Amino acid sequence: MRILLVGSGGVGDAVARIAVERDFFELLVVADYDEARAKATVEAATARRPGEGRLVAAQVDASSAEAVEALVREHGATHVLNAVDPRFVMPIFRGAFAAGADYLDMAMSLSQRHPEQPYAETGVKLGDEQFALAQEWEAAGRLALVGIGVEPGLSDVFARYASDHLFSEIDELGTRDGANLAVHDEHGNEVFAPSFSIWTTIEECLNPPVVWEKDRGWFTTPAFSEPEVFEFPEGIGPVECVNVEHEEVLLMPRWLDAKRVTFKYGLGDEFIGVLKTLNTLGLDRTEKVRVGGVEVSPRDVVAACLPDPATIGPRMTGKTCAGLWVTGTGKDGQPRGTYLYHVADNEQTMRDYGAQCVVWQTAVNPVVALELLATGAWSGSGVLAPEAFDAVPFLDLLKAPKPEGYGSPWGMEDRPAAVATGD
Amino acid sequence: MRILLVGSGGVGDAVARIAVERDFFELLVVADYDEARAKATVEAATARRPGEGRLVAAQVDASSAEAVEALVREHGATHVLNAVDPRFVMPIFRGAFAAGADYLDMAMSLSQRHPEQPYAETGVKLGDEQFALAQEWEAAGRLALVGIGVEPGLSDVFARYASDHLFSEIDELGTRDGANLAVHDEHGNEVFAPSFSIWTTIEECLNPPVVWEKDRGWFTTPAFSEPEVFEFPEGIGPVECVNVEHEEVLLMPRWLDAKRVTFKYGLGDEFIGVLKTLNTLGLDRTEKVRVGGVEVSPRDVVAACLPDPATIGPRMTGKTCAGLWVTGTGKDGQPRGTYLYHVADNEQTMRDYGAQCVVWQTAVNPVVALELLATGAWSGSGVLAPEAFDAVPFLDLLKAPKPEGYGSPWGMEDRPAAVATGD
Repeated sequence: MRILLVGSGGVGDAVARIAVERDFFELLVVADYDEARAKATVEAATARRPGEGRLVAAQVDASSAEAVEALVREHGATHVLNAVDPRFVMPIFRGAFAAGADYLDMAMSLSQRHPEQPYAETGVKLGDEQFALAQEWEAAGRLALVGIGVEPGLSDVFARYASDHLFSEIDELGTRDGANLAVHDEHGNEVFAPSFSIWTTIEECLNPPVVWEKDRGWFTTPAFSEPEVFEFPEGIGPVECVNVEHEEVLLMPRWLDAKRVTFKYGLGDEFIGVLKTLNTLGLDRTEKVRVGGVEVSPRDVVAACLPDPATIGPRMTGKTCAGLWVTGTGKDGQPRGTYLYHVADNEQTMRDYGAQCVVWQTAVNPVVALELLATGAWSGSGVLAPEAFDAVPFLDLLKAPKPEGYGSPWGMEDRPAAVATGD
Repeated sequence: MRILLVGSGGVGDAVARIAVERDFFELLVVADYDEARAKATVEAATARRPGEGRLVAAQVDASSAEAVEALVREHGATHVLNAVDPRFVMPIFRGAFAAGADYLDMAMSLSQRHPEQPYAETGVKLGDEQFALAQEWEAAGRLALVGIGVEPGLSDVFARYASDHLFSEIDELGTRDGANLAVHDEHGNEVFAPSFSIWTTIEECLNPPVVWEKDRGWFTTPAFSEPEVFEFPEGIGPVECVNVEHEEVLLMPRWLDAKRVTFKYGLGDEFIGVLKTLNTLGLDRTEKVRVGGVEVSPRDVVAACLPDPATIGPRMTGKTCAGLWVTGTGKDGQPRGTYLYHVADNEQTMRDYGAQCVVWQTAVNPVVALELLATGAWSGSGVLAPEAFDAVPFLDLLKAPKPEGYGSPWGMEDRPAAVATGD
């Protein structure tokens, strides 16, 4: 397997640091718009393994399908892993296809809201542009494995696992994400520093959240709808979660049977307030505005004013939890409520990988998936989501201790009381 | 009198529209960085009076004292009225002095916070840079009349009036500003659109508020301190007000005797939340940040994303109230609490002047002051605030019906109950 990794920001850098410990690939090209950043990633990852020589750096313009295609051909890449902003999904997706490579991403092509009823009906949905090309991928016998980060990604693997092994009937597949992370400045004061790309966070949180129901299909709601307090494991505790537009809701119903599919994110009051204010002031906009003699995108200015999420790991404490809350009827015919989850502790990911926990947790999953594709444990063609593959080999490889596996356990917690009270 | 007006934004434009109705001057040069904007102001103001020919437009760089000086000399201006951001106070102040003209402004030179104790002690105070040059102005027999907008300005005139005519002893001179303004979009939905320069609003609201006490002098507090609900007249009603850094607190104690001097602004919860968020995200900063290939000041980006306050008048409804709450002992030896105030109704200022009420209310006061200086009713030399002049001719001229006066009544309301309970 010869991999072209596009993007060496927080997630791409962690992908390289994780992958370098594994033997399943022969080449990993780390490409970034900023070649110096790609080189830094190659250097840091290579230094983690004595004798390592499989990583090389390259420059790429991810907005150009032609540039991606040329780079795939230059290095004979068999797989392209997209680790940049979802703005660049389509050129990378098309560039990989044009060059004859398989493709993986961790976020899908962007949505466009419904022109008249944005908070009730879907317009162009997340991933629609990619699924529109599914037949071409299938006809070419080639695989696009979409949404294989942590959320979407591991959450979708959990959904397949619950569907195959835990439930006979599913009422709700509800992804629930929460954390107790805090970032401090050099004086020890807590500061506002989102742990993930603010560009993407604004995009997913301010877009109308999408929900799926079996008798209704996909529909949207106002932003931050249906708040619920969800209890997260391993000491994180209760966090208020709200509906957010996310790929799981678009992916799970295509492969799995459930009455309702939701995604709720534990944003917390402060962060919701910040996002609402950015929206009120028009600072979430991506169209450029004229400021003095120059033109800039307000959302890019917001990003430029905040600390780079890739750099905050050393000043961050706490844990982040990604997981799936499933309710319905168990294999035994009894009501069942189970939370399948994966927790990443920043202290541990910083110590073991020099990567902050949110980007590390996103990055580990596509590496596991690449290994399953390399060994043939997973195979397929078309535009497929994680739900389309057997969950067991993925969950086993993720959990198995090193050096056989990735040594990153996931957990499962039955909550009968929550089912009884309807959560 | 030959006037050079620097700045034809919202306030400058309204100054020209108000002044053109009066006969006290022979020339009004309207200068702006954007000469087209100055020309538009001259055209609109001139059209208000048949046969009018006293207004001319010019281009000026307000950041250059030399450019201001040259323009004063070119037109033989006797008075310079500064109507731009307080960032440009010092170059205009120096340019006017160098050219031998008198000077008026509506906001003073900016403060710099105390390096170690910003929320307890003052650093460089508002106006300090101007007062540092007071002797030179006095020695030259020339007048800088500073802070002669509505707040500071009319509020300071009220303070002098209360001191001379209403109170034998003053406990507090408390400027209180509140409004019930709302701005709607073309669909009738209320939108976020500050009615005054957001640059200045961020500056005054996020700087540590300054308070003066007789036995303590000037000191600062954390932002948004000492919230109190103040009842505003003429149907505006109760508005929560908080301490804000403002010139009155620096001016009143220099000329008047009081135990305490404060300024509280009725920002409202939503606006306070917006300002706190801008601060949290670093978007209030004026130092440039690098965004892609360009450099911009985040605060300028915020301003560029919001509607221009000069343009929102037609979509705005409501009234704004500027006033001074005075407590102490009346001339009769009894406890007294009196609110002296001036209300501007947007509907009326739009109809009569095509100017929204907040900028109109700011603009009318320097025109009244210029007329008093032209007639000799006010005179003086040095760096003087409105408190240094007899309040009566100002208040009479403002209130007198047109064409003798400006037809803009102010009011006075005794509130004995509020004094009794300490309000």
